[in-house]
Amino acid sequence: MKFTIKRTAFLNRLADVQRAISSRTTIPILTGIKIIADRDGLTLTGSDSDISIEAFIPIEEESNQLEIEETGAIVLQARFFNEIVRKLPEETMTVEVLDRFQTSITSASASFTINGIDANNYPHLPVIDENESFHLPVNLFKQVINQTVIAASSHESRPILTGINIVIENEQLLAVATDSHRLSQRVIPLSMTPEQAQKTYNVVIPAKSLIELAKTLEDTAETIEMMVTENQVLFKTENLYFYSRLLEGRYPDTNRLIPDQTATSVEFDAHTLLGSIERASLLSHEGKNNVVKLSVNPDRIKISGNSPEVGNVEEEVAFKSMTGESIDLSFNPDYMKDALRAFGQMDIKVKFTSPVRPFILVPAAEGKEFIQLITPVRTF
Amino acid sequence: MKFTIKRTAFLNRLADVQRAISSRTTIPILTGIKIIADRDGLTLTGSDSDISIEAFIPIEEESNQLEIEETGAIVLQARFFNEIVRKLPEETMTVEVLDRFQTSITSASASFTINGIDANNYPHLPVIDENESFHLPVNLFKQVINQTVIAASSHESRPILTGINIVIENEQLLAVATDSHRLSQRVIPLSMTPEQAQKTYNVVIPAKSLIELAKTLEDTAETIEMMVTENQVLFKTENLYFYSRLLEGRYPDTNRLIPDQTATSVEFDAHTLLGSIERASLLSHEGKNNVVKLSVNPDRIKISGNSPEVGNVEEEVAFKSMTGESIDLSFNPDYMKDALRAFGQMDIKVKFTSPVRPFILVPAAEGKEFIQLITPVRTF
Repeated sequence: MKFTIKRTAFLNRLADVQRAISSRTTIPILTGIKIIADRDGLTLTGSDSDISIEAFIPIEEESNQLEIEETGAIVLQARFFNEIVRKLPEETMTVEVLDRFQTSITSASASFTINGIDANNYPHLPVIDENESFHLPVNLFKQVINQTVIAASSHESRPILTGINIVIENEQLLAVATDSHRLSQRVIPLSMTPEQAQKTYNVVIPAKSLIELAKTLEDTAETIEMMVTENQVLFKTENLYFYSRLLEGRYPDTNRLIPDQTATSVEFDAHTLLGSIERASLLSHEGKNNVVKLSVNPDRIKISGNSPEVGNVEEEVAFKSMTGESIDLSFNPDYMKDALRAFGQMDIKVKFTSPVRPFILVPAAEGKEFIQLITPVRTF
Repeated sequence: MKFTIKRTAFLNRLADVQRAISSRTTIPILTGIKIIADRDGLTLTGSDSDISIEAFIPIEEESNQLEIEETGAIVLQARFFNEIVRKLPEETMTVEVLDRFQTSITSASASFTINGIDANNYPHLPVIDENESFHLPVNLFKQVINQTVIAASSHESRPILTGINIVIENEQLLAVATDSHRLSQRVIPLSMTPEQAQKTYNVVIPAKSLIELAKTLEDTAETIEMMVTENQVLFKTENLYFYSRLLEGRYPDTNRLIPDQTATSVEFDAHTLLGSIERASLLSHEGKNNVVKLSVNPDRIKISGNSPEVGNVEEEVAFKSMTGESIDLSFNPDYMKDALRAFGQMDIKVKFTSPVRPFILVPAAEGKEFIQLITPVRTF
């Protein structure tokens, strides 16, 4: 194998693939990056066996300045190879496999020779039937990911809760995550062929995979293709394939958790409320119980936090409107901060049923497309 | 004590003082910041007992929007207080000491009440005789600090080597640091009164103190005043006092370490050489012995590094001129990188005497004002 390429073009793709590579893997060859040179271009592959990423650098794209003198394949230690490429002196670089998988990387007068591994030993990626695919709008799907992963569990005690449950049916995609203290659910419409609209998919994708996927998705891409098999999902853009394993098991029925009654409803500017919660949480973080107290009355909404060792904070929060009964309750401010940040700058409604039952946050412009739920903390 | 102030003005000064505050101190009150309000303004003090910083916010500077309603003093937990001030909702804030050192911090409708400590319990700062002072040019002195601290030792086995030896005599300031493997020395001229020029100062200031000092020095200030007592040094700009303890003991005589003969001299562009060393060190870092090899011949200068597990790198380095004998030697590339970065973008000369004796780096434009020395590593 021997090729010459523009260093920056190569580095961008290397960075994409590197997201899948973990230095903590127990399979030594997976600390490496697989490079295949064929007549169409270069294929780079990285994997931690949960996530695999394959990036393609086409020879026909002139800006890559890619020339392949000899086809072939090699696996090179990823972290190290990346550092070398980043530090090379010239705009272009040449990679050549020599005897016994030794690989030379040259640029101007600098010449590295590093030990490679036979690419035949690299694990095969899952084969996914490309017939069963549908398109997702990139920007909207990134939003779905960022808005739901916050509520996924980070504890392995119930592995299924570390994933996002994605249900596709009736020409819409529903994503939901819960760590059993809070929940985030988002729905987006999909455009599908009549045939696709007939089918239903229900999968649980590790939140970690989706977080990495969101990072690799360029905003320039308009749509991404999604394909599902029994235990794998593949997301595909023009030159990037992103594989993730699926979580096994049944995702809990979250629908019954969302209250359908409202005793009290308050409309806030999400950003203003976030500022108040951040201040209150400064003190709650110092205490044993990380809770802040919200006190809702028709004429006055108050947030307070306290820590016996440090002191207390109290603030009157500006709100847009309030309907229903007065209510006092306590909650974990970190859940509230995550939820409010996911809304960004918009008006929201917070709907309470009772001090001990979950309350929900929804966009003030109603609709069911985005719901966040938080369970209060009993303090009495 | 009660005052109102523009939050951003307060935060800037708070950040300066916070540099001196360590959360790892064994003296609880030193995790706090002392605030004194008097008729002239606010004085903030932070200290970790090695370094103490005092910042003054004058009432007469209108941009501070400082109003003092009641004079007084308090000590508040620094990290926490800083976070509160940063998160307050409005442009101005009010601090008021209530009963039993409880202190309220209010801004718009947000109101914090935190536990303070009696300011009388705060340790006193050293008293330094301000008569014996002289002026240092700020920009040049920052350069001196940044160019010498790199060679100071970070090991406490010989505490004196963790400091910078500063010698002021004959209207010049000499700063030198060495960890016994390398050395960095810088000399700058001082403008002094005839009376000052008579005196000699020879002190060892902890490198850590000087690093913090360099960070607090604003480039807008032209000169800084330096005052020395038996065991303390004070650096003083208009509204900032920076105290550091001095290291006790005799600094070794470094003059005899600097070779006065040259067998081989090579002129490089410092930046180009740095690039080559960085590449070579990628491989040396992987090996047990972190060394790279330099091979100097009249027609060719080569740098190489290798690690049996990973591979090797070899590079021909561009140089401007070379005089003297051919020489091969090995050294720690990290020392070389630090040294070259301290020169920045300029032409330098590297002067060798023998493969086992220290070599030096100086600006190509000669002069003795800046010398860096590195001891080679014996590899045979």
